[in-house]
Amino acid sequence: MSLPDRGFPRTEYEQRAARAHELMAALELDALLVCTEPEVRYLTGFHTPFWQSPTRPWFVVLPADGTPVAVIPEIGASAMADTWLDDVRTWPAPRPTDDGLSLLLETLREVSGRRPGSTGRIGLPMGPETHVRMPLADLDALRDRIPPLDLVDATKVVRGLRMVKSDLEIRKVAHVCDVVSGAFEGIPDLLSTGMTEREAFAAFRVDLLQRGADDVPYLVGASGPGFDDIIKQPSDRVIGTGDLLMFDTGTTFDGYFCDFDRYVAFGRADDDAMRAYGTAWAATEAGLAAVRPGATTSDLWRAMARVLESGGPLGSSPGNSVGRLGHGLGMQVTEWPSNTGDDDTVLAEGMVLTLEPSLTWAPGRMMVHEENLVVRADGPELLSRRAPAELPIIS
Amino acid sequence: MSLPDRGFPRTEYEQRAARAHELMAALELDALLVCTEPEVRYLTGFHTPFWQSPTRPWFVVLPADGTPVAVIPEIGASAMADTWLDDVRTWPAPRPTDDGLSLLLETLREVSGRRPGSTGRIGLPMGPETHVRMPLADLDALRDRIPPLDLVDATKVVRGLRMVKSDLEIRKVAHVCDVVSGAFEGIPDLLSTGMTEREAFAAFRVDLLQRGADDVPYLVGASGPGFDDIIKQPSDRVIGTGDLLMFDTGTTFDGYFCDFDRYVAFGRADDDAMRAYGTAWAATEAGLAAVRPGATTSDLWRAMARVLESGGPLGSSPGNSVGRLGHGLGMQVTEWPSNTGDDDTVLAEGMVLTLEPSLTWAPGRMMVHEENLVVRADGPELLSRRAPAELPIIS
Repeated sequence: MSLPDRGFPRTEYEQRAARAHELMAALELDALLVCTEPEVRYLTGFHTPFWQSPTRPWFVVLPADGTPVAVIPEIGASAMADTWLDDVRTWPAPRPTDDGLSLLLETLREVSGRRPGSTGRIGLPMGPETHVRMPLADLDALRDRIPPLDLVDATKVVRGLRMVKSDLEIRKVAHVCDVVSGAFEGIPDLLSTGMTEREAFAAFRVDLLQRGADDVPYLVGASGPGFDDIIKQPSDRVIGTGDLLMFDTGTTFDGYFCDFDRYVAFGRADDDAMRAYGTAWAATEAGLAAVRPGATTSDLWRAMARVLESGGPLGSSPGNSVGRLGHGLGMQVTEWPSNTGDDDTVLAEGMVLTLEPSLTWAPGRMMVHEENLVVRADGPELLSRRAPAELPIIS
Repeated sequence: MSLPDRGFPRTEYEQRAARAHELMAALELDALLVCTEPEVRYLTGFHTPFWQSPTRPWFVVLPADGTPVAVIPEIGASAMADTWLDDVRTWPAPRPTDDGLSLLLETLREVSGRRPGSTGRIGLPMGPETHVRMPLADLDALRDRIPPLDLVDATKVVRGLRMVKSDLEIRKVAHVCDVVSGAFEGIPDLLSTGMTEREAFAAFRVDLLQRGADDVPYLVGASGPGFDDIIKQPSDRVIGTGDLLMFDTGTTFDGYFCDFDRYVAFGRADDDAMRAYGTAWAATEAGLAAVRPGATTSDLWRAMARVLESGGPLGSSPGNSVGRLGHGLGMQVTEWPSNTGDDDTVLAEGMVLTLEPSLTWAPGRMMVHEENLVVRADGPELLSRRAPAELPIIS
């Protein structure tokens, strides 16, 4: 597979803005206001790890019929000027007495005022999986000062935009899935008993980078006869014969994530662990068989839950509760939608999803499998290379 | 230097809670409510990259006279049980119809109700450098349902706690500064002309990990005769003779950051670039000379700004505007306070700071130097190894 191009052509951003305008029209918005990293990057291409600094708020305003306007700290002016935007407004941040608020209000009023048939409605994501990244005192001041304009929930807009990926986005996820699949397949050559968890994590992280990943923002895992902390950082525990090892990683290429995991056993494996592995693998098969445009996330959930509830060593005992079994994936390690019993999102071509069946196979011992796929017209296209059907035992 | 211990002993968390109780008493709070990664980790020790998933909110409630109570998604129960907390309450998230709200309200009411002399005041950080990490619709519902309790701003509490570091925290920052200083000093052996920026970034990232860093969440840089985008990701530009290269990294050890940068020139350097380098270096010296308990961040700013405004090739021309010249550092790559003209935070022993003088030395060309230090009784103790006084020219 050839390396995907870096970044996106201008046409990609024009298409995103056009789709946004359609979704905004349904809500009669004068403008969309976003202030979180993925949303800003989605609309502009602005890509920097600087968001880890909590000091300054950043805003992008998408007018109902125009290109995005950036309202950002001066420190980002040069980077934002390299995007497709031609309207970049800055203030000298940090300036706690007015950290962009006046400039933002002025921009919103201007954009709203020049729109024929203005409704005064400014969309801001307020629903599940969103938050407002600015101090609450400033958000309250914005709400006080914004009338006669009105802030209304625009979760549907950003969710609708980001949930269905373009081919260029899918290529980036596919590439990082390919890199990480190779790294998982290389674990028998990389790890062995006698290493600590910390050493194993470090070796795997470097291996991922050396195989061409840009970064490994998300790496969790555990080792032992069994474990139920599936978001764990490494300890100094020494990996021994009979141990299971699980790694789960959100590794990135050009700002796009994979999110899947793999298990190995060292030397030998417990029968119940092998049975649990087989059940999780079979649940993923059932999930894959249910993926098609028009099916829902809850259909996927039911297909997987049915296998999980009957197949594990604990069967449908109360300890084996079935929660979310996968989710969307792309610019973030998890995104809308959720594969849950009542999510009911209708699958569409171009959605990138994880299937993530999990079961408790003994008290305090969980098994979680995960694969990444894109929804195609005729069903799922796997982006991660399918896990082996049986728990791999390595030396 | 021996490797710092991982994690913290229970006494560290007890001291943090005791300091929090003092700061909370001044605001007459029944409880402190936090929902962002550094604050939750500071009070509990809960450490996972899972926060990158935007799906679920997480809450910790610190009662005015007790130990913290976690109100978190079920997926974190096992990890949180490994901390010093003994009161961990969970709900099956994601559950968009009630994503922890009822459980949080019940917890706040219980904590407030059992406090003799309850004021009903619940502190939540609302000021600079904070945000509320939950959907705005849920925050609004919380505010609607919380009376007769009242949410009040508690920025002072978290700022006051985190700004002054314990010796154990300082050791972690010192260690990562030591690792990164070594990596910067090794650049002449690692990089050469003919590499692309992307290759240089990748080599440096792997080198940092191989020297013992846990992760490199923040790495920006640029190459060329000059540049003014100082939060940039790498391009395919080939590094050539006469180029400057700048790397700026927030690398971590056990969840604690360094944040400093270094410049090198390949083959030869422009006279103005060398003069700008010397000015930035001298500005740092002036900043260091001003560091002592009782001085303010604005004293540091003035000491550095004086050198910057007179010394660069552009002198005090309008293009050479002087903004923030450094900041706090610790669990995040930037933290309170800010070295600005009007910040006026009084320095205290144990504060970890960066000095970050910057100047524009030609149109579109900036020079930014950065060092990390801890404020000691007798002045600054450098944590980063001091940059060379003259711009290093490598082959």
